[in-house]
Amino acid sequence: MRRGQTPTGNLPRNVTEDPVPTRIAILGGGQLARMTAAAAFRLGLEVGVVARQAEDSPATLMATRTWIGDWSTPELLTDVATWAQVVTLENEFVDARVLAELERRGVSVRPSAHTLATVQDKLTQKEALRKAGLPVPRFAAVESAADMFSVGRELGWPLMLKARRGGYDGYGNELVRKPEDAAAAFEKLSRKGSELMVEEFIPFTAELAIMVARNPQGEEAAYPVVETVQHAHMCHTVLAPAPVSARTAARAEELGRAVLRAIEGVGIFGIELFLLTDGDLLINELAPRPHNSGHFTIEACMTSQFENHVRAVMGLPLGDTSMRTAAAAMVNLLGSQDGESVPRGMDEALKVRGANVHIYGKHRSRPGRKMGHVTVCADSVVEAREKALQAARCISL
Amino acid sequence: MRRGQTPTGNLPRNVTEDPVPTRIAILGGGQLARMTAAAAFRLGLEVGVVARQAEDSPATLMATRTWIGDWSTPELLTDVATWAQVVTLENEFVDARVLAELERRGVSVRPSAHTLATVQDKLTQKEALRKAGLPVPRFAAVESAADMFSVGRELGWPLMLKARRGGYDGYGNELVRKPEDAAAAFEKLSRKGSELMVEEFIPFTAELAIMVARNPQGEEAAYPVVETVQHAHMCHTVLAPAPVSARTAARAEELGRAVLRAIEGVGIFGIELFLLTDGDLLINELAPRPHNSGHFTIEACMTSQFENHVRAVMGLPLGDTSMRTAAAAMVNLLGSQDGESVPRGMDEALKVRGANVHIYGKHRSRPGRKMGHVTVCADSVVEAREKALQAARCISL
Repeated sequence: MRRGQTPTGNLPRNVTEDPVPTRIAILGGGQLARMTAAAAFRLGLEVGVVARQAEDSPATLMATRTWIGDWSTPELLTDVATWAQVVTLENEFVDARVLAELERRGVSVRPSAHTLATVQDKLTQKEALRKAGLPVPRFAAVESAADMFSVGRELGWPLMLKARRGGYDGYGNELVRKPEDAAAAFEKLSRKGSELMVEEFIPFTAELAIMVARNPQGEEAAYPVVETVQHAHMCHTVLAPAPVSARTAARAEELGRAVLRAIEGVGIFGIELFLLTDGDLLINELAPRPHNSGHFTIEACMTSQFENHVRAVMGLPLGDTSMRTAAAAMVNLLGSQDGESVPRGMDEALKVRGANVHIYGKHRSRPGRKMGHVTVCADSVVEAREKALQAARCISL
Repeated sequence: MRRGQTPTGNLPRNVTEDPVPTRIAILGGGQLARMTAAAAFRLGLEVGVVARQAEDSPATLMATRTWIGDWSTPELLTDVATWAQVVTLENEFVDARVLAELERRGVSVRPSAHTLATVQDKLTQKEALRKAGLPVPRFAAVESAADMFSVGRELGWPLMLKARRGGYDGYGNELVRKPEDAAAAFEKLSRKGSELMVEEFIPFTAELAIMVARNPQGEEAAYPVVETVQHAHMCHTVLAPAPVSARTAARAEELGRAVLRAIEGVGIFGIELFLLTDGDLLINELAPRPHNSGHFTIEACMTSQFENHVRAVMGLPLGDTSMRTAAAAMVNLLGSQDGESVPRGMDEALKVRGANVHIYGKHRSRPGRKMGHVTVCADSVVEAREKALQAARCISL
């Protein structure tokens, strides 16, 4: 069927004239970049990876081209942008001013420098959401422990104190239970140089997350909302779909889509939500990139979050986000000690029927470091979680 | 849970003491090696790729280590074997004597040199199957056109004349309709230097295929049998599961498993079958490696053929081969002309809901070259095929 001659030459029917861009560069060399690279390769693209260090950047092992260095250096980024048609990232902490400079020179940076500038500062992120009429916890900028006292009189205690920039996986957050603890917490978090903000403490009943993709043409695709179970502020287990009412699921999707429009997001975004006791949802935080809570999509959905991220940033149509299976569960594999990572227990883990084990190929382990994950598809989230935990328990990294 | 201390030190419960081998080398740099590499990376392995040429060997783009050269050279293979704990292949035409030499030096070659020696010569392959009591078309070695006449008196005409070595995708096969055509066909096929054989012509109603994996411990895993629809001797469309009776499907699985035992196969094998008008099955040919008819398993099965190949050759437990979805269809994307490959039509193809498009990243196209494939999962093979063809029709490579 691709052999038919048409008036335009050797092109078959339905074939458009413009070849798509073929080179994508990813800022970051970790597992998110690695899984994004795998999806990009599958679509026939060439993949460049920009990693801060040569050692232990697992994405560099499967890249067409690798750059090692500080990705906030204009020289490095210019070199990258000369090679790639599209630049994306696995990490939101890239200097947005440098990205804006690239854009001024005509490079497609996706998500855009504007979106990243808004999202990477949690204060401006929340302001943008509130301005769009979206439900967020009450918040305020604070410049001193004294500011915390006055905000605390309005929002009540405990307060959640947050670094506005650079926080992830709970690093940069501090729960302040009472006014007497404010000074120490402020001192601790401001030591790293970031400005701080506080949010009201939300007594949620569950944490949910939804992945939503959007391409430059404005096409959107939302995945089923999931429940994320955190241990020690890190995403530990993800249940898909979240065991919530259809009304809650629909509301989560509505919020997710509205968030991307509010910040003009292009690419895939992870939106973390609090489920309140009365069934309402509040938006907790955003990640402008593939997200741990979307790893289940590799096996469980018609199109993975990584492929939809690549499609979105390349300006391609988005793929079907529906689930192939009734349910899925994902469990993170975390490092347990400092030192060289020697995977053990794979033999036992792979005996668990249906366990899809992902090992990121990091050479060094440390307590809590994300070293891999396990996904299981099953007929129910209960069965999927049980099997995923069973397999994960066998593995030491 | 991975933090618990046990009497053996820092190992969690259930963790075995022996780390698994971590380095696999693949002989061959094409799409089968590339998709095998992707599966190996996901399991946290390091992947070496041995390609005949640097140009247009798409697997080399995502390898930890690459060797370019003739993989029948003992020096090259020794270097590879020094790096890797396990050596496997995407192509059965590696000199089995060289592999046997590697084995004598203690390298794990999987499948083994013995298995490859048996399979890579279609005559010894068929003899091994017949000796194991498995149903194959009647066949005979021929050393001249005169031999063909005498065999033809017994097996009837037409006859299928085959090069014993080096044939694939119909190259090396010649249908000889009548005795008068024997001399020309013999001359044509023997020109390439291979010895020849003939087989009786089988008037099949359908071609089926089954992928079966087996590890060194003897564990086996069979995928659902599929129907393969060939155009011009090449696998064009695969329907999973094959629309055949449960009895036929069970017989196909029985034959597939028996084949691997007969040849002591380790790794994944593609077994091509003829479905006869009376419902019986005959074994057509074997491929001692991942196979085009198994590409659907990437999306449609709990564990892909590539991951099960890696698990098998690494001596790991095999994964669940059952389908995640009711049905799937795979359509190959073939080159249509000589020259540089410029993917066109991705934009239209990706609009087809549920289309998973794989582009192999080959830079040069030629008519009939396998450049990619499309898989669609759906509720029925009819729907899956329709969508896969719809997406494939859009793409030109």
